[in-house]
Amino acid sequence: MTQLHNLTGLPDDGRRRVVIEDVTPRVDDGRFPVKRVSGDMITVEADVFGDGHDEVRARLAWTPPGEDWQWQEVEMEPLGNDRWRASFGVDSIGRWLYSITGWTDRLRTWRHDLQKRLAAGQDVTVDLLIGAELVDAAADRVPETNTADAERLRDWARRLRAGETAIDAELAALADEYPDLEHTTSLTEPLALTVDPGLARFSAWYELFPRSASPDTKRHGTFRDVIDRLSYVQELGFDVLYLPPIHPIGRQFRKGPNNRSSENPADPGVPWAIGGPEGGHMAVHPDLGTLDDFDAMVAAAGQRGIEIALDIAFQASPDHPWVEEHPDWFRARPDGTIQYAENPPKKYQDIYPFDFESSDWQGLWQALKDVFRFWIGHGVTIFRVDNPHTKAFAFWEWLIEDLKRDHPRVILLAEAFTRPKVMYRLAKLGFSQSYTYFTWRNTARELADYFTQLTHPPVSDFFRPNAWPNTPDILHEVLQVGGRPAFEARVVLAATLSSNFGIYGPAYELMENTPREAGSEEYLESEKYQQRTWDLDRPDSLRPLITALNRARRDHPALQTNDRLWFHPIDNDNLLAYTKNTADRRDVLLTVVNLDFARPQSGTVELGLEGLGLPADGPYEAIDLLAGSTELWRGSEIEIELDPAVASARVLQLRSLPRTERQFETF
Amino acid sequence: MTQLHNLTGLPDDGRRRVVIEDVTPRVDDGRFPVKRVSGDMITVEADVFGDGHDEVRARLAWTPPGEDWQWQEVEMEPLGNDRWRASFGVDSIGRWLYSITGWTDRLRTWRHDLQKRLAAGQDVTVDLLIGAELVDAAADRVPETNTADAERLRDWARRLRAGETAIDAELAALADEYPDLEHTTSLTEPLALTVDPGLARFSAWYELFPRSASPDTKRHGTFRDVIDRLSYVQELGFDVLYLPPIHPIGRQFRKGPNNRSSENPADPGVPWAIGGPEGGHMAVHPDLGTLDDFDAMVAAAGQRGIEIALDIAFQASPDHPWVEEHPDWFRARPDGTIQYAENPPKKYQDIYPFDFESSDWQGLWQALKDVFRFWIGHGVTIFRVDNPHTKAFAFWEWLIEDLKRDHPRVILLAEAFTRPKVMYRLAKLGFSQSYTYFTWRNTARELADYFTQLTHPPVSDFFRPNAWPNTPDILHEVLQVGGRPAFEARVVLAATLSSNFGIYGPAYELMENTPREAGSEEYLESEKYQQRTWDLDRPDSLRPLITALNRARRDHPALQTNDRLWFHPIDNDNLLAYTKNTADRRDVLLTVVNLDFARPQSGTVELGLEGLGLPADGPYEAIDLLAGSTELWRGSEIEIELDPAVASARVLQLRSLPRTERQFETF
Repeated sequence: MTQLHNLTGLPDDGRRRVVIEDVTPRVDDGRFPVKRVSGDMITVEADVFGDGHDEVRARLAWTPPGEDWQWQEVEMEPLGNDRWRASFGVDSIGRWLYSITGWTDRLRTWRHDLQKRLAAGQDVTVDLLIGAELVDAAADRVPETNTADAERLRDWARRLRAGETAIDAELAALADEYPDLEHTTSLTEPLALTVDPGLARFSAWYELFPRSASPDTKRHGTFRDVIDRLSYVQELGFDVLYLPPIHPIGRQFRKGPNNRSSENPADPGVPWAIGGPEGGHMAVHPDLGTLDDFDAMVAAAGQRGIEIALDIAFQASPDHPWVEEHPDWFRARPDGTIQYAENPPKKYQDIYPFDFESSDWQGLWQALKDVFRFWIGHGVTIFRVDNPHTKAFAFWEWLIEDLKRDHPRVILLAEAFTRPKVMYRLAKLGFSQSYTYFTWRNTARELADYFTQLTHPPVSDFFRPNAWPNTPDILHEVLQVGGRPAFEARVVLAATLSSNFGIYGPAYELMENTPREAGSEEYLESEKYQQRTWDLDRPDSLRPLITALNRARRDHPALQTNDRLWFHPIDNDNLLAYTKNTADRRDVLLTVVNLDFARPQSGTVELGLEGLGLPADGPYEAIDLLAGSTELWRGSEIEIELDPAVASARVLQLRSLPRTERQFETF
Repeated sequence: MTQLHNLTGLPDDGRRRVVIEDVTPRVDDGRFPVKRVSGDMITVEADVFGDGHDEVRARLAWTPPGEDWQWQEVEMEPLGNDRWRASFGVDSIGRWLYSITGWTDRLRTWRHDLQKRLAAGQDVTVDLLIGAELVDAAADRVPETNTADAERLRDWARRLRAGETAIDAELAALADEYPDLEHTTSLTEPLALTVDPGLARFSAWYELFPRSASPDTKRHGTFRDVIDRLSYVQELGFDVLYLPPIHPIGRQFRKGPNNRSSENPADPGVPWAIGGPEGGHMAVHPDLGTLDDFDAMVAAAGQRGIEIALDIAFQASPDHPWVEEHPDWFRARPDGTIQYAENPPKKYQDIYPFDFESSDWQGLWQALKDVFRFWIGHGVTIFRVDNPHTKAFAFWEWLIEDLKRDHPRVILLAEAFTRPKVMYRLAKLGFSQSYTYFTWRNTARELADYFTQLTHPPVSDFFRPNAWPNTPDILHEVLQVGGRPAFEARVVLAATLSSNFGIYGPAYELMENTPREAGSEEYLESEKYQQRTWDLDRPDSLRPLITALNRARRDHPALQTNDRLWFHPIDNDNLLAYTKNTADRRDVLLTVVNLDFARPQSGTVELGLEGLGLPADGPYEAIDLLAGSTELWRGSEIEIELDPAVASARVLQLRSLPRTERQFETF
């Protein structure tokens, strides 16, 4: 991947003696950008080596986004075994580039060898002359602005030429600043790095149906009702409020409650059946209000630190204006009808998919891009994309690249519950966050295996999980049968395993758990098909737990990333124990969850205190961030008991005692 | 790595819906060719998938070397989880190419969906019409040479149009032959595959100094003496006879016995100090004979099935003609002298390295290439390259590519005992075989770890080990102190762990083991500095063991590759047990070695009979290929005892009993 080569003849410069291999981070050999967020330090490593025994040097170069690339450089440090490392910080959002340059350094080799010759007591007369030539050459490379450096180097060369064995480190460091870069090797192409806003990595999503935001069962909810709901969402601690599609809904083949065919003209229909006489993807449903109302909602949310996330579902109802305007964006059937969505033998006659094999695919792509641009124009920067895996991969890569060029802060969440390689591909193509299989990972082993994969390279370099214990489409069986302990456990898992998480509420905090029928993951009386109202003040609501969880996430940087997620051995398969900590180990969080929702379970967790920066020899604090209590623990093996009747999970900050307290303890 | 993409605008064809990822085999993302030998089946796998749920198809394409690429194709088979596989055989030597194409197949998707619709009892009237259109389109793609196929397809379309639910497999297979390839995805560049002669993977090397081939201590050995030695080498079973450099030797700074400065004009000097008044790298040392004698030796060896391997050492003595003719190929020192070889504080004043940073690097490269071409012209196709890691990497890549274009059978062995990444890089650049760290891997754990790494991808796709228990430069301590048991064990390990192995003889079979001084790996009275004579008929010679080893290697294809090398658990750290088997498991070889050269050791090896294709329920034969005895074994756990006073190692063929014998056993 790394070197210019021309195998049919001589290379351009056969004197490039250094090669560069195995650069990390790097996604699919540089085919896709690596993802990070603003404020990160990017640690780059590579194998850099030359033939022979000459001293090798390497530099890491990088440039922030901008009209003109502004390359900066830093010397890489050798780690041994020809591995090198350097870091740079990223402080602006957009597409950064980085690369590596390596070369053999004759002056440094000379100095290194000279020291060995001197140590062996050899005559170094000629070697000093060789050094003088190399030092003079370095002086020739000094820019005219640094004449003092040039003069110091020339003086050094004179002393060497006079037979003085002058090889002190200060002069060597000065010469190192002016290396001979005539035959350097660089990566053939720089690597790309997408730097997103912090919210791409650390976010708490709350999904609600605006139609159900009305406190009055008889009245369709509106954007104004959502504004009234904002304080509730803010108190819960969420920073992204995600709304299912807000567009006009088709009439033909409209669905009624519980996905039956609608027989009642008052049935509101399914928000994902987008488009009606009132408009398509760039219109709002009249029952929700006006575009002005929408803008007011976005503004009100922003004042509370909440971003509105819209649902982009690229499909049309039979009543969508594009069906008439652009029949070539849909697939025609031999009987003159338009192909509706199917998953044979299932038919979804209320939905027309776009045909990405359309001869006017360019026109379709541009129109879909305009949808995003329209809503960005209305202050939306976060989009949850419905079923991206049923649209062409090349479309997403082009779209996201294009959007982010003008709007680098945009965040897109991929709703793709499909095969693993497809989900990963979508993330590589540019989606900022991705839905996961979290909902279907329920045993301790399943959760540990899955999140170990998601939180380590190569996956963690391009895929950011967003864990949801429920969605309007997924009421998992564990919630149907596990009762309150299951709801507690699953939201704690989501919020602590994954720095991005979300719930579909108020169904979640009110523990709605009746399936449409036995064996189904669909909700009974789902809001997808009808308006609902919710009693948010129910005393059994999970509000306090969720509020405490979100507070813990905000207070503890360890929970704001998926780096350094460690699963700890515990001698009970019903319990899952893991820590997250910051790189400096000043913030250490232990979560223990009881996955048996019916019975108390206890076990001994092996913490490995040294790895967590905790004292092996004395007590340390364990502060329960959900219960609010504090204990003093000692040693690496901690006995934990969790009674689901009390709490399914504990989230504990582990902290060394302040010095005075520890001394007190010792006496 | 895989797709054409143009991120600044629309892609060429946004309707290519399939992507291809993670192709294996593949070295550094296709930067370097994969290595195989003639006769191999190449099994290629890749992730191939599209958006949505349409049926995906994939084809593997490949072409043998030649003036015109002759691409052939085969359909890939799905393995599940979006992984696909297909194979092709390679029967000619040279640079092959292979690639993958994928697409979504609308006709196959239609048939698949139709079956589901029919199973659900749906009305399929329109679906049959859709199918008719797709089948007619397939008929349109039939070449004019296959009109019968076209007619069959059109008839099928007519029947579908008439409402007949005709979807039988035979018609589907016919249509599959004429897919719609308008929007296929292929690798951006094909992958390269170097197919070498079988000898590149399976070879037994014998190194001798021609100067010592003389039976007369007083007379310098000659190529004619080497001819007389061929029957001995053939009887031992070696197929490559490797000679240290055969060129004129420099006079200035000539070394005498035991690397002391020569004070005796009769000292023959070091063969690696190449070049004298008689010539350089394209001349032969007059004391060895003439070029005609050399040619006669190559021919005589060929008649015995032995290839002569020459040592290419790119360095010059101060007397090399190039020192005068091309002073710019060497580095000048400020005192007007030429820079000799050094490893400070060591100085090698009898050796001038070539300066690969020379301004005339192109001239130097061409001259060095001419050296190879000269000897290829004299019938040599195998070269052992001395210290390739001290020459520019780019040079080797260019040289080997260029040589192999005209002489694809050429085999180059890299003598690079240096850092692991440098050794691997040289192999990637094109060296056919590589020296290894085998000599310094002596415990069971070290050997198992190292050969597990060498014999699995990614390493095994580009690096072919050649294992040497000794060389003229390396008399390892275990041989110095371990006596005959150590010599037995190390040669058995080399010959059975690695399909390429070699010894430096007659020092090895005569168990020469006195170091120049304590703590040194140099031989006392090394042939590097003086002529030696050897008593090949000494009764304690390891000749019988080596002959038996080479016979076992020739008789057993399992030993002719490093694929399927398995280390087996054994409950004694002094013992190492491993098997090799052929892909069809008809040839299974077990080797057990006692690494304690002083004491008998015993242990129980766990064979895992099922993996070896051996019966779990009955006896099987264990044929000792070194001792010539046969035992009947039963079960997976076998107790082995090895007494170094008798034999340090056993090499056993494990074989199911012929059916009649097994029946006999059962009664």
